[in-house]
Amino acid sequence: MISWKIEENGYDSRKAINQGNKFLTGNGYMGIRGTLEEYTKEQFPAVNLAGIYDQTGNGWREPLNAPNGLYTRLLIEGEEYSLPEKVWMSHKMTLSYRHGLFGRETVFQTKKGNISLQTERFASMEEKHLIVLKTTLTPSFDGEVEVITGIDADIWDINGPHYDSVDTGSLNECLYALGTTHENQDQVVVFETIGLPGKTDQMVNSDDRKVMRRISIPVKAGGQYSLYKYIAVYTSKDCKNYKAEAEKLARKAKEVGYEQLLSDHKSNWEEKWKVSEVSIEGDDEAMEALNYSLYHLHSIAPRHSESLSIAARGLSGQTYKGAVFWDTEMFMLDFFLFTEPQVAKTLLKYRIDTLPGARKKAESYGFDGAFYAWESQEGGYDACSDYNVTDVFTGRPMRTYFKDKQIHISAAVVYGIMRYTLFTGKSDLLSEGGAEVILECAKFYYSLLIRRIKEERYELWDVIGPDEYHERVNNNAYTNRMAKYTFDAAVEIIKEEMAEGNENSAQKKELLERLEDAAKHLYIPEPDEKTGMIEQFDGYELLEEVSIAEVKERLLHEKEYWGGAYGVASHTKIIKQADVVTMINLFSNEYDVDTLYKNWSYYEPRTEHGSSLSACMYSMLACKCGMADKAYPFFIKSARADLLDGGKQWAGLIYIGGTHPAASGGAYMTAVEGFAGLRIEDGKLKVSPRLPAAWNKLGFNVYYQGDLYQIIVTKEEAQVKKCQSDITLSLSTR
Amino acid sequence: MISWKIEENGYDSRKAINQGNKFLTGNGYMGIRGTLEEYTKEQFPAVNLAGIYDQTGNGWREPLNAPNGLYTRLLIEGEEYSLPEKVWMSHKMTLSYRHGLFGRETVFQTKKGNISLQTERFASMEEKHLIVLKTTLTPSFDGEVEVITGIDADIWDINGPHYDSVDTGSLNECLYALGTTHENQDQVVVFETIGLPGKTDQMVNSDDRKVMRRISIPVKAGGQYSLYKYIAVYTSKDCKNYKAEAEKLARKAKEVGYEQLLSDHKSNWEEKWKVSEVSIEGDDEAMEALNYSLYHLHSIAPRHSESLSIAARGLSGQTYKGAVFWDTEMFMLDFFLFTEPQVAKTLLKYRIDTLPGARKKAESYGFDGAFYAWESQEGGYDACSDYNVTDVFTGRPMRTYFKDKQIHISAAVVYGIMRYTLFTGKSDLLSEGGAEVILECAKFYYSLLIRRIKEERYELWDVIGPDEYHERVNNNAYTNRMAKYTFDAAVEIIKEEMAEGNENSAQKKELLERLEDAAKHLYIPEPDEKTGMIEQFDGYELLEEVSIAEVKERLLHEKEYWGGAYGVASHTKIIKQADVVTMINLFSNEYDVDTLYKNWSYYEPRTEHGSSLSACMYSMLACKCGMADKAYPFFIKSARADLLDGGKQWAGLIYIGGTHPAASGGAYMTAVEGFAGLRIEDGKLKVSPRLPAAWNKLGFNVYYQGDLYQIIVTKEEAQVKKCQSDITLSLSTR
Repeated sequence: MISWKIEENGYDSRKAINQGNKFLTGNGYMGIRGTLEEYTKEQFPAVNLAGIYDQTGNGWREPLNAPNGLYTRLLIEGEEYSLPEKVWMSHKMTLSYRHGLFGRETVFQTKKGNISLQTERFASMEEKHLIVLKTTLTPSFDGEVEVITGIDADIWDINGPHYDSVDTGSLNECLYALGTTHENQDQVVVFETIGLPGKTDQMVNSDDRKVMRRISIPVKAGGQYSLYKYIAVYTSKDCKNYKAEAEKLARKAKEVGYEQLLSDHKSNWEEKWKVSEVSIEGDDEAMEALNYSLYHLHSIAPRHSESLSIAARGLSGQTYKGAVFWDTEMFMLDFFLFTEPQVAKTLLKYRIDTLPGARKKAESYGFDGAFYAWESQEGGYDACSDYNVTDVFTGRPMRTYFKDKQIHISAAVVYGIMRYTLFTGKSDLLSEGGAEVILECAKFYYSLLIRRIKEERYELWDVIGPDEYHERVNNNAYTNRMAKYTFDAAVEIIKEEMAEGNENSAQKKELLERLEDAAKHLYIPEPDEKTGMIEQFDGYELLEEVSIAEVKERLLHEKEYWGGAYGVASHTKIIKQADVVTMINLFSNEYDVDTLYKNWSYYEPRTEHGSSLSACMYSMLACKCGMADKAYPFFIKSARADLLDGGKQWAGLIYIGGTHPAASGGAYMTAVEGFAGLRIEDGKLKVSPRLPAAWNKLGFNVYYQGDLYQIIVTKEEAQVKKCQSDITLSLSTR
Repeated sequence: MISWKIEENGYDSRKAINQGNKFLTGNGYMGIRGTLEEYTKEQFPAVNLAGIYDQTGNGWREPLNAPNGLYTRLLIEGEEYSLPEKVWMSHKMTLSYRHGLFGRETVFQTKKGNISLQTERFASMEEKHLIVLKTTLTPSFDGEVEVITGIDADIWDINGPHYDSVDTGSLNECLYALGTTHENQDQVVVFETIGLPGKTDQMVNSDDRKVMRRISIPVKAGGQYSLYKYIAVYTSKDCKNYKAEAEKLARKAKEVGYEQLLSDHKSNWEEKWKVSEVSIEGDDEAMEALNYSLYHLHSIAPRHSESLSIAARGLSGQTYKGAVFWDTEMFMLDFFLFTEPQVAKTLLKYRIDTLPGARKKAESYGFDGAFYAWESQEGGYDACSDYNVTDVFTGRPMRTYFKDKQIHISAAVVYGIMRYTLFTGKSDLLSEGGAEVILECAKFYYSLLIRRIKEERYELWDVIGPDEYHERVNNNAYTNRMAKYTFDAAVEIIKEEMAEGNENSAQKKELLERLEDAAKHLYIPEPDEKTGMIEQFDGYELLEEVSIAEVKERLLHEKEYWGGAYGVASHTKIIKQADVVTMINLFSNEYDVDTLYKNWSYYEPRTEHGSSLSACMYSMLACKCGMADKAYPFFIKSARADLLDGGKQWAGLIYIGGTHPAASGGAYMTAVEGFAGLRIEDGKLKVSPRLPAAWNKLGFNVYYQGDLYQIIVTKEEAQVKKCQSDITLSLSTR
């Protein structure tokens, strides 16, 4: 039995920013940070929009936050009752994550008596452009209460402001704010309508960044007074008549009313959970944390689009420029692929549609084919800078090589497309451009291949693998293996094309020969004969052997970068995150368990786990080594990534906080592919349970080749059952 | 008419350390810094020894300084008269560089009257183990003067002390000090005998670091009282009975006497000048500076050995670990090759004899053949550290790549051997191991060659060229061209061996084929079709375009390193020193003058000239472009490198001052190969004069294929005349 709810009692202003992430709600079109309605930009409130970006001046290009239609403040006898300024009597925040419902209740003491301010809100899962907010006031006194509410366009931006101008006003009972961006004159429009209790007066004020209603409500002691806000958000990218649509939606929502909208929203969520919920018997904490992770993935899935991906920090703000990283394909994809393949397709279509950007990037470096953006924005534009880190000692930007040397990104795209094809059993994505992407990525790696004149084997030099602390290395095991994977995939595709008689040009045949040759000769670092250890890159074994504790002690500044040319980790064996372990986890069937175990044991104590992408790989591999209990803490770390109050929030003066959807996806993969051991063998779903000690039963559903399967594993047995229809019973024991 | 003398009047203690370099005397076996006799280690006096090294603890391995047998102090009525402590009435230092004679004269005011302290000393060019010092006292009063003189083994060391123990004492009228080194228990022994004026008393005192005579001299006003010291220096590497030999020499020198020793010493120098002097009519300043440069080269030529090279700072101290760099072959060799080919052979024999070290280094990096030491000590041991620079902001060592990426060093050795062979017309060096060195260097480069699978051409990646500010670059033009030079040389040698029937194995034939293939396919960056500019390395043209002044302004700390991963120059087009310009100067016959000029013009404003190896390359190339007057300031800069009081003396807390023999050699090359345009064409010496405006006539002698030629060029005509015997008339117009 789990509560599907997180709650926080009391108020601590220092937690306000992190709670914005922890209590996030969203529907894929937008994310609403779990901040209070009265917050101004100092507390980082945001209605973060998917897939629309702006650059101001030389600042980083980043996604837009919409004007804040939730903005609401309470006044009694002219005095404001808002957090964090005001002393509170009681305060509580809740997130009912079964249904993406944010709530808060605060009791303030006023000169006239106490008053409770309660809100409930959601980003409608049914109507993606709609936010609904219910505010209930319960005074212990008779008199008048004032509420200021409207749209605040003076919003938080990391590298803003992004609206050169904001048009505000009122129209047909609605308030609106329409912001025009700096770079492309994109527009974001917010309309709100309001439902008021009984007989209230209101006045509207607006300036160039705000439009507000001032509402006076006569109240009696013990009475409950509810205000409803219906907030519609559109951008000029959504449709032609975005302004009219927004107005229409805000007005229509008011007509439909709060209860019906809430009911539709909940039903929509229930449909999702029916398929995607994971049940764990014997470990409520794990079950809570895991489903809370899935909640986050649902909240940012771009269901409103056919071609859009997910940013590394989801829709929790502008961190990491709202850009798409390899996180999507390698860490988040499986969840969607297994529970909602259409979303998986949308994510991958984004890569297909950004192929021109990837081609352009490859060309700019003198390579062939497609070199995908390390930090991908619209059109595949690479938002990654050549100077991504600031030297804390000199304040100077440091030349980093994420953009130009982290070539494994293109293989991640290939991996995603192939995995989609394998699990759906459909070739739709391939024929809609996926095949072309794979060939282009193969051409990219082919153009990077080098051979020492003396040697037969092909190599890849001067790269960065997943472990970013060691830059400009040769023959990173993960990178080389993924490049080979890409060659293999391309060869398979060309052969199929040829078999189908679609393509038999001499050019294609020559390409086929080349890629077969490349796949055959590309050097993949092998386990050492004695130790079984696979060297992360050429020369890794010659690096300094030192403990993580010792490396930490060498820090002269708490925020200094561990990597780069002279970082404390750079010339040691200490790595940031799973690298070889990621590789052998993906290709575990190519190694014996002893080798998997030896590499896990070797690299684990040398891994800082300084990235949220690390723990799940160690966890999954531990499962494959039969060490479920060693896997467990890493699993919990992934699943609780957004539940904790800690985590890295700042890098120097740059805010890097936000949600960690890759960790959420990693937790899911660990449960399903690690603990349950789900995989495909001979074209069939297979499981090999290896459950943690406390787990009695693990259950979940997955789509495989168009059918939904219910999978229930215990320590003794495993059941893979095809469901008779798409509608399966929820596993939840609520 | 030039004076062959430099002089400095007055005393400034801040100049004491640099004067040690400027007034250096030496004979190749040892260098005596131009410091005063009374100096203790604070003023960096040194008798620096060639080719013998020691490492103490984790300090840098560096050459030894001998116990200081020159140590002399003056006392009058118990009060010391020494610089820098005492106020002086007059002070003068001189270096008669025609004969390597150091002199000083200081007048002190004492309570009893004035006294003049005058010394004259030399490191005997005739007897390499001998130093001779004459001290003359001229008092203006009657009374007694005391002199303390002996051997001071409490000497200046950068990373010392190197003598774990020093045995001091007196033996058969001699004083001696015998130091035993830390690392290899090498021994350095110094014996001194003394010739005293008239009737003097003396007492001997010794402790574990000093052995001193206390001498009392009764004096009369206006009298001159001279003391003579004969100091013999030997090491355990010189011969078996080094201690006995040192004693014997000190005693014998005293018998022979100062005047005869001085006369022999001068004659020896005169023999050198007969061949090597360069005469410039119309520009005494240039003639002084150039011959002063040649003086320095003569003073450090290892004539006492058949296999020894010259350190980058000559014999002026322990800077740069007393190690041999590419400076020797690329900058100093020509002077010796043209004027004293036996010395050139000695320098190159050192490389032949250190081939095992070079092989070992190559092997340690997984390469074939011979990778010569970047900082070569005994046996080819590479004294270069992987952490050669200290970060001034953090105090941490910075990973540098001089040792492992500056692969052009091996080609410099090949270049030297081939140049010796060409200019002497003799194959002695080749048959004594030179041919093997060349083949091993070719194998080294061959094992480094890579080919992009897509391309035909071969490349060299991840190197540092002469410009050290840009590290880890691909296809450095200089490096690639020198590697091709190496392949060509090796091919020539194998073909000759085959023609002579010495070597016809299948293995050799296969090697020949490989090296021919390598020479053919190795990519040499070519002049851009539009601009004529040769790119220094792949991607150089994409770097930031910024002025040297702007780069300097970006410095946050005066001593911060300009290069490395994040240096102020690293991501700009600003380079440390001639790089492409060095390449096209060496291979100027492969380019038209327009291309030479365009590259000179392009790179000159982008060059910091932060190395003393830079100016001469710009100067020579300017000559080849017909711009003698643009060449002139660079020539003067090279020729005056050791005359100036400035120059980089410190890098952080590390003393890097010393003489600049590569600049001296570069000045010589500029005069001979630049202004006179000396070269070999069709097996004959040719000249093409391009004299600076002020020069009326330039004359010098060079050996070519065993014959000495006198070359005299004016603006109108050029004369190349074979001398009838080895003895040619001096060109000097003294």
